[in-house]
Amino acid sequence: MTRRITLLTDFGTADGYVAAIKGVIAAIAPAVPIDDAAHDIPPGDVWAAAWALARYWRLYPPETVHLVVVDPGVGGDRRPIVAEVDGRLFVAPDNGVLTRVLADVAPSGLFLIENERYRRPTVSATFHGRDLFAPAAAYLAQGIAPAELGPPISDPVLLPLREPVRSGNRAIGEVVHVDRFGNLITNLPAAWCRGAIEVRIAGRSVGPLRRTYVDAAPGELLALVGSADLLEVAARDASAAALLGAGRGETVIVDFGSLTLPGGASHGESV
Amino acid sequence: MTRRITLLTDFGTADGYVAAIKGVIAAIAPAVPIDDAAHDIPPGDVWAAAWALARYWRLYPPETVHLVVVDPGVGGDRRPIVAEVDGRLFVAPDNGVLTRVLADVAPSGLFLIENERYRRPTVSATFHGRDLFAPAAAYLAQGIAPAELGPPISDPVLLPLREPVRSGNRAIGEVVHVDRFGNLITNLPAAWCRGAIEVRIAGRSVGPLRRTYVDAAPGELLALVGSADLLEVAARDASAAALLGAGRGETVIVDFGSLTLPGGASHGESV
Amino acid sequence: MTRRITLLTDFGTADGYVAAIKGVIAAIAPAVPIDDAAHDIPPGDVWAAAWALARYWRLYPPETVHLVVVDPGVGGDRRPIVAEVDGRLFVAPDNGVLTRVLADVAPSGLFLIENERYRRPTVSATFHGRDLFAPAAAYLAQGIAPAELGPPISDPVLLPLREPVRSGNRAIGEVVHVDRFGNLITNLPAAWCRGAIEVRIAGRSVGPLRRTYVDAAPGELLALVGSADLLEVAARDASAAALLGAGRGETVIVDFGSLTLPGGASHGESV
Repeated sequence: MTRRITLLTDFGTADGYVAAIKGVIAAIAPAVPIDDAAHDIPPGDVWAAAWALARYWRLYPPETVHLVVVDPGVGGDRRPIVAEVDGRLFVAPDNGVLTRVLADVAPSGLFLIENERYRRPTVSATFHGRDLFAPAAAYLAQGIAPAELGPPISDPVLLPLREPVRSGNRAIGEVVHVDRFGNLITNLPAAWCRGAIEVRIAGRSVGPLRRTYVDAAPGELLALVGSADLLEVAARDASAAALLGAGRGETVIVDFGSLTLPGGASHGESV
Repeated sequence: MTRRITLLTDFGTADGYVAAIKGVIAAIAPAVPIDDAAHDIPPGDVWAAAWALARYWRLYPPETVHLVVVDPGVGGDRRPIVAEVDGRLFVAPDNGVLTRVLADVAPSGLFLIENERYRRPTVSATFHGRDLFAPAAAYLAQGIAPAELGPPISDPVLLPLREPVRSGNRAIGEVVHVDRFGNLITNLPAAWCRGAIEVRIAGRSVGPLRRTYVDAAPGELLALVGSADLLEVAARDASAAALLGAGRGETVIVDFGSLTLPGGASHGESV
Repeated sequence: MTRRITLLTDFGTADGYVAAIKGVIAAIAPAVPIDDAAHDIPPGDVWAAAWALARYWRLYPPETVHLVVVDPGVGGDRRPIVAEVDGRLFVAPDNGVLTRVLADVAPSGLFLIENERYRRPTVSATFHGRDLFAPAAAYLAQGIAPAELGPPISDPVLLPLREPVRSGNRAIGEVVHVDRFGNLITNLPAAWCRGAIEVRIAGRSVGPLRRTYVDAAPGELLALVGSADLLEVAARDASAAALLGAGRGETVIVDFGSLTLPGGASHGESV
């Protein structure tokens, strides 16, 4: 059996680290295609990696092996793990990088990676991506069962995701990711935003909900539902992050005026 | 039938967008190889994307599917199209990004993408790359005919390319692309430059035509015919763009002294 | 026979150069997978390319073709070469980029690339990656013998690697690479560093040898043995290069106090 491997790292594209991982995989599983997901996750930014992974893991077909090496705790006591979720496999450090996968779908399997048979003979203290995660992913892609890698675990590390809240005629959330375009993506679900008369962020109004970027004038800020089905603050042909000086964690307020809130709930409902 | 897909975007390599596109393709056409062309096209820069695409589309073998997602007008009224040119297929927004392909060779087919059978069930307003272009490319790579995607069109959007001119003992063009090395690539064809005694840009002379970078001293500006068979202003081991403070649109003048112009034409001849 | 090709360049990811190389390969050897190694080597930085290549070439299985296009001397008198080392093939300009491969293992074959049969019909003066190296790599991946490409050579260009020295109770080396994380990697082998009581760089002590990044406090500088089995000066969750204002060539001193030096040698021993 041959599966596909995707590779998400914070290694950048100016060193040999990404190719080291690919070489280890190629030596074990030469027929397995490797898709570069993204390599310019900011160094050690587990939140950004968790966000990026959530954008694609389920679009890949079942049996895909998603390898994630954003691992600031390498060589310390964080555990290496493999997870099976909705038919896809994940190989990653247990540092929260799988939070948005596990928050979405309960895993059907979760195991420690500790079987020495499926790692490189010598494991460095600083590059488990090469010595431990890459071989694990390659052997999984060759068809070994996740349970072969080690004993089950039940307490994966999860990042503390904050839920948006609804209160009175407002919904309040925050920016959870800033993308390459400077779009500020929030944790406010599309279903909460219908009928919004105004979206506010960083002390400014960006108007009512619009449909797409070109519904604003060039350079103008706007709010819309983005491709993750979440409220997004953007700017047409410009960076909302730069225009607003805002980033991850910034509060976003959706105002419904005197309208009844969509869905009828008035506060505290989670996604 | 299995074809290869190439992928050109302005998505950068720090988000999950590129992998979302690859995942959609992998789910439809798992055996089709996907080549990353480039993902750091400046956000929304259709001119830079059109230039980059022109550097490689015809080097790939016939039947290759070139997928281009530089799409600042996503969700607006710009059309999604597929083009068949010299045996290669192109899937892109109709925003001019195919200009340098279509200016080079007349398309043998040009169609709207609108058949709902070949897109994701729900199409977002902001990510047609994932929901519409990726599936179209994947199905084309699987062998469906371009005409299956929608009705023919005949009026693709073309960027207003400016032609260089020849006048008296001079040829005048402009910079059409600045590459990673800071090389300033112009629209002046090699055939126009033979016998040039001086090339001028941004108020400075960069000397006569030289053959390659190392024909200049380190840090020195020079003019040469680059790999696109066009006049290029470069600097050895340095960025001509930075040294000259020049960019796209900058005028470049080629002086032939009292020599007869090559080819004999004296002005206005196009590429 | 089908081999895999890896591709290391300084072309960046905003132009069409990488895809031009891939397209040439795809046209000659459509079934050969191409792994992107890294494309953001600083422009023309042969040292950085030689370092990156050393991180992965031997992790790939035998028969892999490693294509390296960091070629500031393109079109000049530097030679294009193919090397066979430990079963892997290398296609590169003869500018020292293979130094760390050839310093590690004697090549079993080293040849000039000059057979016109295995290049594009027209070879530009500025893009041998496309016109000469890519076809050579593709034909090698298809199984032609390296000796088919041209006559043997015996004098490849080698970068002047400086060896660390041991003197009295100290070992002295230098930074040979700064990676994406700002880690300062030195030429001091792990075997020389056991028992170090203090590591000094740029006028500062970074303490004794530690095992991994999380053994330091956030933001703290530390010394450790990195994944290349060499002494590395790093900072936890931060850039040592930025904190120290240090880069390639910076002197690093390992102090052993009054201890006997590991291995017993007292100075001048090479790696």
